[in-house]
Amino acid sequence: MVLTSAPPTLPMPRLLSTLPTNKSISCCGGTNYGSSQSKPNSAPAINFQAKVFPKENVITSPKQDDDKTVTPAAAARKIPQHLNWESRKLDGVYDTFGGKLGQGGLVFQQNFSIRSYDLGPNGKATIGCLMERLQETSIQHCRSVGLYAGGFGSTPEMSKRGLVWVLCKLQTVVEKYPSWADVIQIDTWTGASGNNGLFRDWIFRDYSTREILIRATGLYMMMHMKTRKFSKVTAEITDELRSALMDSDPLIDIKNAKLGRLDIDARNYFQTSVAKPGWSDLDVNQHVSHAKYIDWVFESIPFSVLETHELSSMTLEYRSECRRDSVVQSLTAVARDGTGDSTHNQGVEFDHLLRLETGSKVLRARTLWKPIM
Amino acid sequence: MVLTSAPPTLPMPRLLSTLPTNKSISCCGGTNYGSSQSKPNSAPAINFQAKVFPKENVITSPKQDDDKTVTPAAAARKIPQHLNWESRKLDGVYDTFGGKLGQGGLVFQQNFSIRSYDLGPNGKATIGCLMERLQETSIQHCRSVGLYAGGFGSTPEMSKRGLVWVLCKLQTVVEKYPSWADVIQIDTWTGASGNNGLFRDWIFRDYSTREILIRATGLYMMMHMKTRKFSKVTAEITDELRSALMDSDPLIDIKNAKLGRLDIDARNYFQTSVAKPGWSDLDVNQHVSHAKYIDWVFESIPFSVLETHELSSMTLEYRSECRRDSVVQSLTAVARDGTGDSTHNQGVEFDHLLRLETGSKVLRARTLWKPIM
Repeated sequence: MVLTSAPPTLPMPRLLSTLPTNKSISCCGGTNYGSSQSKPNSAPAINFQAKVFPKENVITSPKQDDDKTVTPAAAARKIPQHLNWESRKLDGVYDTFGGKLGQGGLVFQQNFSIRSYDLGPNGKATIGCLMERLQETSIQHCRSVGLYAGGFGSTPEMSKRGLVWVLCKLQTVVEKYPSWADVIQIDTWTGASGNNGLFRDWIFRDYSTREILIRATGLYMMMHMKTRKFSKVTAEITDELRSALMDSDPLIDIKNAKLGRLDIDARNYFQTSVAKPGWSDLDVNQHVSHAKYIDWVFESIPFSVLETHELSSMTLEYRSECRRDSVVQSLTAVARDGTGDSTHNQGVEFDHLLRLETGSKVLRARTLWKPIM
Repeated sequence: MVLTSAPPTLPMPRLLSTLPTNKSISCCGGTNYGSSQSKPNSAPAINFQAKVFPKENVITSPKQDDDKTVTPAAAARKIPQHLNWESRKLDGVYDTFGGKLGQGGLVFQQNFSIRSYDLGPNGKATIGCLMERLQETSIQHCRSVGLYAGGFGSTPEMSKRGLVWVLCKLQTVVEKYPSWADVIQIDTWTGASGNNGLFRDWIFRDYSTREILIRATGLYMMMHMKTRKFSKVTAEITDELRSALMDSDPLIDIKNAKLGRLDIDARNYFQTSVAKPGWSDLDVNQHVSHAKYIDWVFESIPFSVLETHELSSMTLEYRSECRRDSVVQSLTAVARDGTGDSTHNQGVEFDHLLRLETGSKVLRARTLWKPIM
C-alpha cells in the first residue's frame, strides 16, 4: 500500500500547552518570579481593573511532604461572594450553553449538561469529563475577549514574539460529582501570579441548586515557542493583559502547593507496563490529551481503591510534553493511608509519576481519595 | 491498607448493551427472524402509526466478502424527506440543547456543540465523540417517550419478563466531520426490523447549513437478562411498542450487511499486544464503553493511514460483552487497498477483530478510509 497524501492540516490554535523540557520547570514553584505579594522587578505592575473576591477567600493548600498526613485543602475553603452578572460593554449572551461574559469580560460563565457518556462506572461524571469542560471554558473565555492571537490566551505582542502560555500546575478540589442530566455551571477568571505568571480559577456549580461542586486553579507561565524557555512579561504584554485580569488571589494557593517525591528506590509502588498513546489520545496539536494523562495516572491505582473511593482532590504538575511516539509508564505510591476500618475510613492519598521510557518525567501528581458513602 | 467499604451503587439503567455470548449471535444476521419484508410468524404484526420515509429512500449496503472491492454504501444513499416538527400531544421543548420530540413522539431531535475536547489530531470531531452523541440521543428518546422501565428502551412487559434490548450491529456513514464550535443536530427514530428486532436510525446535520453529515443505523434484538438468550417479541410487548415505531425501512440495510471474515491464518494482519480496559474505559454497568471498542479497533490500524485518511464508513458487529477483567487483542487486515498513487487514491478498507485472550470474539468490524483532501 502506498500512501502519499499530505498529512492533515491543523487549523486549531495551541490548546492548554504543557511544559516542553524538564530543565525549565524549576521556575514554576515561584522561586524565580516571587510571590504574588512581591514588588515588580523588570516588568511594571499591572493595574487591576476590578476587585471581586476578597483576598481572604482563598483555599490555602498546605505544604505537603512525603508520607505526611495533612488536612485536605478543601477543609480551609471559603465561598467567594456572588458574581455580579450586570450587563457591561463586553458582555454578550450567546445561548444557554454557549457561554457569556460577566464583570466587563473578566469572568466567563458556561453551562454544560452531563450526558450518559460522561459517566464513569460509579454512575457519576468522571474527573476526565470535568477537566475537559474546564479546558473548554478557559479557551472560550480567551476567545470571547480576543486573547487568541496565534495561541490560547496569547496577546498580539506575545504572538509577535513567539510566546505562548503553558500550564504548569493544576489543582482541583471536588465537593460533589454531578450525575446524569445534571446541568453544571462553570465560572472562570484569570489573574496575575507574581510578575510573570497567570493563574486561572474555576468554580463548578449545580445549575439548579447553586451548590458548589468543584473548585480549581491552574498556574500558567509564558514560554518561547522556539527556544522552549520561559520568558518574562514585558511592558507591552502587561498593557495588553491589563483589562483581562481579576484583582484577586487564586482560589487555591497552587504556587506553594508541594508535591511529594516518588522515590522509586525507597518506596513500594504500583506500576503499569509501558504504553504508547493511541490515535484517539492525541489532541489537535498531536500532543497527548490531558484526559489521557489522568487515565494513565488512574491505571496504576489499584481497582480496589477506585471502586470503593472517589477522587476528592488532585494536583497535577506538568513536566514535559508527551507526543504520539512517547512510551510512558505510570507509577503510584501510597502517600498517606487513612483507610483504617470501614467506620473510620479517612481515605487514601497517592503520589504519582508518569515518566518516559528514557526516564524523563512527564507529570507528577498527588490525589486524595475518599470512601464512597 | 484495608478497604472494606461497599462497592459503589449503580443508579443508572442498562445502556446500549452488547451481546453476551457467541452462541446467541447467529440470529443477528436475520436468518432466525426473517427479513423486514417477511410475514409475521409467532408474533403478531405491528400496526405502524405513521409513515414518514418512503421505503425507497434506503441506503442499500452491498454484501461484502473478503478482499472484494465494493461500491461504498454511501454512494447509494437518498435523502429522506424533511421531518415535520409540528407540536403534538407528546411534543415538548426543553431547551436548545435538551432535545425535543417530533412526529407525536416518533422522532427525537437534539443539538450538540462541538467542543475543543471533541477534536482529534486532524482538528475534526472524532468518530468516538460522534458515537457518544448517537448513544445519548437514543437513550434520551427512550426516556422522553417513557420506554425506560428498568433498562434502555424497555417496556413494562419487557421489564416484567427480564428482557432488554441489545445492540447487535451498527453502521455509520460519514459525509463530513464537524469542526470546533459547530452545532450538530441529530434526528433519531426507531422501527421494526422483522418480527423480533428493532432498528434505530440517526441523521446528523450541520445546524446552520442543514447539510447532512452522518447517517447511521443500529440493529437491536431482545435478550433475556438471566438466560442471556434472544427472545421473541410477544403480543403484549408489540402492543406497548406500537406507538413508538416509525413505518419505514432503515436508512441503511444493516440486516443484510455482511462483514468479511478475518482469517488470521490466511491473511496478513496488524495486531496490538493484549490489553485490559482501564477504570476510565468502563461505563455505568461496568462494561467497556463503546468508545473504547472503537479506540481498540483504531489501535491496530497503521498510523500512516490514520494521519492521511479519514473514516468514511464503519460497520460494527457486537459479539460478546467485555468487562473490566477482559484481556483484549485488536487485529486488522486490509480488505481492499485502493490507495494507488496520490492522484487516484480510492481509500482503503479494513476488516477488524477484537478478541479475548481466550479466543472469543468481542467485535467484528469493517471500516472504509478515504484520503484527506
